[in-house]
Amino acid sequence: MKPMSEYDTEAKVSAAESAALELAQTSNETRSDGLRAIADAILERESEILEANEKDVAEAEAMLEAGEYSQALVDRLKLDSTKLESIAEMVRSVADQEDPLGKTLAARELDQDLELYKVAVPIGVLGTVFESRPDALVQIAALSLKSGNSVILKGGSEALHSNRVLYDIIEEVTADIADGWVQLIEAHAEVDAVLEMDEQIDLLMPRGSTEFVQYIQDNTKIPVLGHTEGICHVYVDDAADLEMATDIAFDAKVQYPAVCNAVETLLVHEQVAESFLPEMVEQYESADVEVRGDERTREIVDVNAATASDWETEYGDLIISVKVVEELPEAIDHVNTYGSKHTESIVTENADSAAKFMQSIDASSVFHNASTRFADGYRYGLGAEVGISTGKIHARGPVGLEGLTTTKYYLEGDGQLVATYAGDNPRPFTHEEFDGEWVPGTRSRN
Amino acid sequence: MKPMSEYDTEAKVSAAESAALELAQTSNETRSDGLRAIADAILERESEILEANEKDVAEAEAMLEAGEYSQALVDRLKLDSTKLESIAEMVRSVADQEDPLGKTLAARELDQDLELYKVAVPIGVLGTVFESRPDALVQIAALSLKSGNSVILKGGSEALHSNRVLYDIIEEVTADIADGWVQLIEAHAEVDAVLEMDEQIDLLMPRGSTEFVQYIQDNTKIPVLGHTEGICHVYVDDAADLEMATDIAFDAKVQYPAVCNAVETLLVHEQVAESFLPEMVEQYESADVEVRGDERTREIVDVNAATASDWETEYGDLIISVKVVEELPEAIDHVNTYGSKHTESIVTENADSAAKFMQSIDASSVFHNASTRFADGYRYGLGAEVGISTGKIHARGPVGLEGLTTTKYYLEGDGQLVATYAGDNPRPFTHEEFDGEWVPGTRSRN
Repeated sequence: MKPMSEYDTEAKVSAAESAALELAQTSNETRSDGLRAIADAILERESEILEANEKDVAEAEAMLEAGEYSQALVDRLKLDSTKLESIAEMVRSVADQEDPLGKTLAARELDQDLELYKVAVPIGVLGTVFESRPDALVQIAALSLKSGNSVILKGGSEALHSNRVLYDIIEEVTADIADGWVQLIEAHAEVDAVLEMDEQIDLLMPRGSTEFVQYIQDNTKIPVLGHTEGICHVYVDDAADLEMATDIAFDAKVQYPAVCNAVETLLVHEQVAESFLPEMVEQYESADVEVRGDERTREIVDVNAATASDWETEYGDLIISVKVVEELPEAIDHVNTYGSKHTESIVTENADSAAKFMQSIDASSVFHNASTRFADGYRYGLGAEVGISTGKIHARGPVGLEGLTTTKYYLEGDGQLVATYAGDNPRPFTHEEFDGEWVPGTRSRN
Repeated sequence: MKPMSEYDTEAKVSAAESAALELAQTSNETRSDGLRAIADAILERESEILEANEKDVAEAEAMLEAGEYSQALVDRLKLDSTKLESIAEMVRSVADQEDPLGKTLAARELDQDLELYKVAVPIGVLGTVFESRPDALVQIAALSLKSGNSVILKGGSEALHSNRVLYDIIEEVTADIADGWVQLIEAHAEVDAVLEMDEQIDLLMPRGSTEFVQYIQDNTKIPVLGHTEGICHVYVDDAADLEMATDIAFDAKVQYPAVCNAVETLLVHEQVAESFLPEMVEQYESADVEVRGDERTREIVDVNAATASDWETEYGDLIISVKVVEELPEAIDHVNTYGSKHTESIVTENADSAAKFMQSIDASSVFHNASTRFADGYRYGLGAEVGISTGKIHARGPVGLEGLTTTKYYLEGDGQLVATYAGDNPRPFTHEEFDGEWVPGTRSRN
């Protein structure tokens, strides 16, 4: 294994910047072939990868015995043949995705022989800091290559040896596409250096805990694609199908409680609270969910008391808070006050109430008669998921490869001057949209 | 005139936040009618506006005599009947623009009766800090209302009295649409407070000098829509039509040298330098343009010497630097090194060279055989221009009303649970795009 020089961060980022210009000109075929070569090399070099991974696992197990790490962390870290096969398959599925680049998003004739095209292009240089699963490194590198972006990778230190081998493989088999497009950093000092490089790095994609993402957002001027927390609600309207409401509220909490799109607070219209809550609570308790209710809830069912802080807590666990509301506006107001603008759901057979709820709630996803757990790039059909954004700028909600692109305007003229279109007798613009595509080298009209 | 309580910034921003939720639910008709009411009121209350403006102008003239202000500033500040008419017309033209909200950007069936819609919605609360022209306040307020966003306005202190009256008019005639959607702040302390409110304010749109925009970017965590500088190039290729090249390079510098899309450096292929430069320099000099050339340029024409700092200077004036390059890659390299990623143009009859230049240059707009001065929202046919972005995230290049929107996912189901689509025998998603539009209240499929 080649030694890593850990502190030449500027040289690494600078190399990534140059490579980004090259990468932007590669074809989808070249980038996808590169991805398939990565998948092949991962399978071919299995023993080398597993050997490095064993070192990480051994070190992690020592930490586990010392009480520093959890068993879950050790499990996530561990690779085997089957996991490597699924990693290779994931890389191939990214290769098979539609090309996110080169699409003409708008074509407009400004005047005769003066044509403007808005085209999807890579963003440039991405910075990523991610958790200890070694497959995260491969996934992020794959998404970056497919979208034509250079990427600076910083994985968890627990996966140091695994990450080095995986990085070496990726770097080696794709160096001829754009040398330097992928860079590995390891030291914390390098992360701090990266956070300062807002002139060189175009977008940061941190993955990890809420606190971690918040830390990144607070310590950089680089735009961050990520989400900080998910406080999601299910509102059971007075016109709800109560059986449906029970199933949705159960699924939204129990199917996978640790994730950001799980429900944390259930809001129940007072008209249906008495018929709905007993059965709901019974179901929750049968699945070991702790229910915490407000005063009105506790008049109906015997559960723990919810305090004000419950409304603003992302449990990420088998706990749910319940509040009885007088009417729809109170539910909307509660969600807009305590929600994290992630995903919200109303259960109702009343179309007007659904419309009102969906329009009034300020969140990236608002559902009608469906579980909040559907908020996810794969389920949304976006292909590979880059992340989920709770920000409103650039990308919002589950983000696919499109979120790793920006746009560029191409203008094809035959000598037009602005002076012709200004002054006392200006020539008018035609400004007509047309179906058209910017194809390099064929739009010359001379 | 009502007194302004200058330091309740939080209350103002909080009112704007609440109003944003209301504004998001208004129809295009309501917002456009509000704009027409603003236009009418501006004309009706002409004397009141001009009276306030006279105070600003008188104060500015005193500052002019004291040598503090320039005549240009005083001129920009001054309103009269004709200017008010053109301001009213501008507001009406924003009213007439297509609705930027509510458009369904994607519709996808995830499974039978489970339909996902991606819909354009307002961003929320905009913060703006702008120059001393009082028409800027009206324009920014108009763009915000049309796009359903609340807005915090901070104008130049030179226009204090004019801004207060214009703000009062806007606030009064639109209060019934969403009370509190428009807020005026005046003190510098309030600007500092606003820059800190990254939880409440979704996007900042500063307008002014490069240094000013840079200051804002350096002092806030709120995303900033704006541009810092424009170092634009025209490259005259060996296959250029030299007469066209002369006209384009002249227009790009002389037609309006103070603006960001004017050319600062001319790059000339060595094969055509001798035939191109003498005539070009003669034209520039006839228009009082100072030409600064590199060594090879000065072997051909008698001009001042360009130093290394010229390549990175936005003159914003009748000065241009000229460099002779050996070949296309050197031109590309120079632009990618010194350009500000704003607007770049190649003049050539060779389609391959054009394609190479356009793809290799990392800039928001790249032109072929056209003046850099075309980079502008009006000329691009975007309707009202919100600003020009040299950032790559969210919006890039000239930005229309679309740049003041984000998206929201609406999911319409009939009780679907994620558990059905997970586990050992998962139901597959259909993931089929369809032509469809989310219309509030009519998508209920029960």
